[in-house]
Amino acid sequence: MNTVAASEEFIKNAGEMQQERCSSSDRPLDPGGLLTHDAERSAARLGCAAVDFPVAVVLPAGGSGERMGLPTPKQFCTILNRPLISYTIQAFERLSWIVTVVVVVATENHDLMLNIVRKFNHTKVKVVHGGTTRHRSIFNGLQAFSNTTDSLTPKPKVVIIHDAVRPFVEEDLLLKITLAAKEQGASGAIRPLVSTVIATTSEGYLDHSLERAKYRASEMPQGFLYDIIFQAYQQCSEFDFEFGTECLHLALQYCGTNAKLIEGPPTLWKVTYKRDLAAAEAIIKETLSMSACIIAGAEAEAVELAKTLQKNLNMMETDVISCAKENNTEYLSKTRNFIHISMSGSSFSGVPEMVKRFEDIGHARLYPLVVVWVQLNMTKQSVDSQKTDKLTAFLGLASEVKQGNVLLYGIEIDHSKVPEQWERSVERLTQITVALIRDRNAALTGQLLHA
Amino acid sequence: MNTVAASEEFIKNAGEMQQERCSSSDRPLDPGGLLTHDAERSAARLGCAAVDFPVAVVLPAGGSGERMGLPTPKQFCTILNRPLISYTIQAFERLSWIVTVVVVVATENHDLMLNIVRKFNHTKVKVVHGGTTRHRSIFNGLQAFSNTTDSLTPKPKVVIIHDAVRPFVEEDLLLKITLAAKEQGASGAIRPLVSTVIATTSEGYLDHSLERAKYRASEMPQGFLYDIIFQAYQQCSEFDFEFGTECLHLALQYCGTNAKLIEGPPTLWKVTYKRDLAAAEAIIKETLSMSACIIAGAEAEAVELAKTLQKNLNMMETDVISCAKENNTEYLSKTRNFIHISMSGSSFSGVPEMVKRFEDIGHARLYPLVVVWVQLNMTKQSVDSQKTDKLTAFLGLASEVKQGNVLLYGIEIDHSKVPEQWERSVERLTQITVALIRDRNAALTGQLLHA
Repeated sequence: MNTVAASEEFIKNAGEMQQERCSSSDRPLDPGGLLTHDAERSAARLGCAAVDFPVAVVLPAGGSGERMGLPTPKQFCTILNRPLISYTIQAFERLSWIVTVVVVVATENHDLMLNIVRKFNHTKVKVVHGGTTRHRSIFNGLQAFSNTTDSLTPKPKVVIIHDAVRPFVEEDLLLKITLAAKEQGASGAIRPLVSTVIATTSEGYLDHSLERAKYRASEMPQGFLYDIIFQAYQQCSEFDFEFGTECLHLALQYCGTNAKLIEGPPTLWKVTYKRDLAAAEAIIKETLSMSACIIAGAEAEAVELAKTLQKNLNMMETDVISCAKENNTEYLSKTRNFIHISMSGSSFSGVPEMVKRFEDIGHARLYPLVVVWVQLNMTKQSVDSQKTDKLTAFLGLASEVKQGNVLLYGIEIDHSKVPEQWERSVERLTQITVALIRDRNAALTGQLLHA
Repeated sequence: MNTVAASEEFIKNAGEMQQERCSSSDRPLDPGGLLTHDAERSAARLGCAAVDFPVAVVLPAGGSGERMGLPTPKQFCTILNRPLISYTIQAFERLSWIVTVVVVVATENHDLMLNIVRKFNHTKVKVVHGGTTRHRSIFNGLQAFSNTTDSLTPKPKVVIIHDAVRPFVEEDLLLKITLAAKEQGASGAIRPLVSTVIATTSEGYLDHSLERAKYRASEMPQGFLYDIIFQAYQQCSEFDFEFGTECLHLALQYCGTNAKLIEGPPTLWKVTYKRDLAAAEAIIKETLSMSACIIAGAEAEAVELAKTLQKNLNMMETDVISCAKENNTEYLSKTRNFIHISMSGSSFSGVPEMVKRFEDIGHARLYPLVVVWVQLNMTKQSVDSQKTDKLTAFLGLASEVKQGNVLLYGIEIDHSKVPEQWERSVERLTQITVALIRDRNAALTGQLLHA
């Protein structure tokens, strides 16, 4: 092999690598509790056992999002039709040991926030009004617990303060932060510095650079004994309220509490710029694409195609089942991607039934489901006099189920007795299916593609 | 309007906002010189006039990319089939006042790098071997200029040091860095700190937090008088070579030069994690989607559809031209998206001709071109007995032109005399066209969609 070919392949491989299922350290295992791994369930049990005291969360979300260059505050920008803040709320709400999530929003966003809570069925949220600065908003959030007559917000032992725009926080870190806060009074997530930090002269020249190893970036979440952080806020100055940025600093200054620092994963990064929205969307889409369920019916050719497809889709976890109607709600709720293989001529009546079942279990409430309807044509003669009607009906069905957050796509595949030709078609079917599942592109629903 | 509806719309609008053409501050105006704006051209003239001395660039690219969680060093990860480092090289190479770009790579990547240079036709690049640390690699790069017998690398007056994984650097900032380096001896880009920086105790507790306003993050590019930075490296210690991170610090310590600091845009961010690749890809795709050329032929219905489509595509800059064949290379090279409208029954022979012309001017070398072939059916009777043959031929053509980095998609639209129905179809045509142009999804080429 000459070097050109070798290197080209290397580049190609690099590209493919990026497409592969990700075990990269900057990805959360389960953003927003979208999977129901056994591992996740046992972590939840662990959390319940270790945290035998009430824990609440304060999410300041009063920001204006100027840095995004968007008229919408970034916490309300949507990813797959859901505002960022709903993902963050969900990351806490799914944990049984977290009692309440207090969301602090600017007065003008109060109704918007209530609607988000209703639409995405957030059950642990209390919305309170924000102040003019971040510290004032957090203090407002903390004060919600001092009203002893409100049964939704009893005074917690530990309170976690987090940013509305860091949606990928995981249970493991939250447990560490909570337990350290209980023990030490305060705790906070840190990350290594990405850039060298320098001190500048007043004329804009380099004064000196800091030794990177001695410093850390202070991130969120942070945890506090409620009494400590509430006392710190009660005592702090107008200057702190106006210009301060760091809750850990207030606990140190006013209560003498040195926070325990805990190294967090890179997923703690804050959605700050518009490009970060694209990054967050990519993470969510990739996580949603990690598994699929193939529904093949009973006919031999469909089952065979299902098995080949399963082999080809080796970057995903796939199950092949025979029918979506039977008693297999467990299968259906395990994934958010469905590949429905049927023989040419059969109607697509299975689709509305499946969608009805999703609706019953609220499966599409938080994330759009993808249904790829594969139609296997056994005869070459595919000149279908009802073709136009079929296209129209499929488009209509797709636009109907889209209302329920289900994205429906069709792919036709012609069976061939010529092995190479058939392999090529199945390979194309695989690529198109993967692309549709990964992209979750709403503009392409109802299309009948050809493999 | 009740509050539910009002708020829902607000969320919806937020989503749409994100789709809109971007004037956000975290986007480069023209990543890698992909557009040829008049503004850009005049900046180039300005650069030529202001920089009347030789300027070279050193790009250390020896990193291993561990942080990405990928086996490929991040500078070689691909976006739209092109390695990241090629985008960065292009950002410099397009500037007439930059003479040479020295790329420093690990020995094992030397051939790979030479192939990238060849494939993407980089003409100002010299590849040299890296050292074991970042500082050793930079010193190796600088030494390439001290060999006076090499005519490709004459000693520059000013040398710019940049990261291979910051592809979106713009001419404006490079000019400022270069002129400040010429005047002051050294200069560097800075950014405000994103997080509070804290000092930790050896036991992992908070010691104190730094006052954010007094510090800055030191970023790239940095500029130096060649003699100063070369002298600094000649004098620096083994400790510096091994553990140092900051070139500005070396210039200060060994030459007493306090660098001039220049505030850079957020686009200077470093592609560090896998999610950053997704962010970079989104920026590149968005920039590529800012304009389109609609080719409508001479028939009245096609021209009318073209004009409606142009009105609908108001988030893009669009031109409508009648024919791709004639003397309009200027139009064709202004954009990377082409919407070719033809009447039903006409062959798609226009496509190969257009692709041939792209090839002649090397238009698809750096970025994939999108060709959307729209077929307007005037009669309801669209039962096409040659349908299968047409599909196969189109798929074949698409896979052929894909070799030349042209992504070909088809959309059929049935004309309707019922205004609402026609409007709905044209609206769908718009949405699909936008989705295809934005996504540049290679898996969907050759598909014949239906509007």
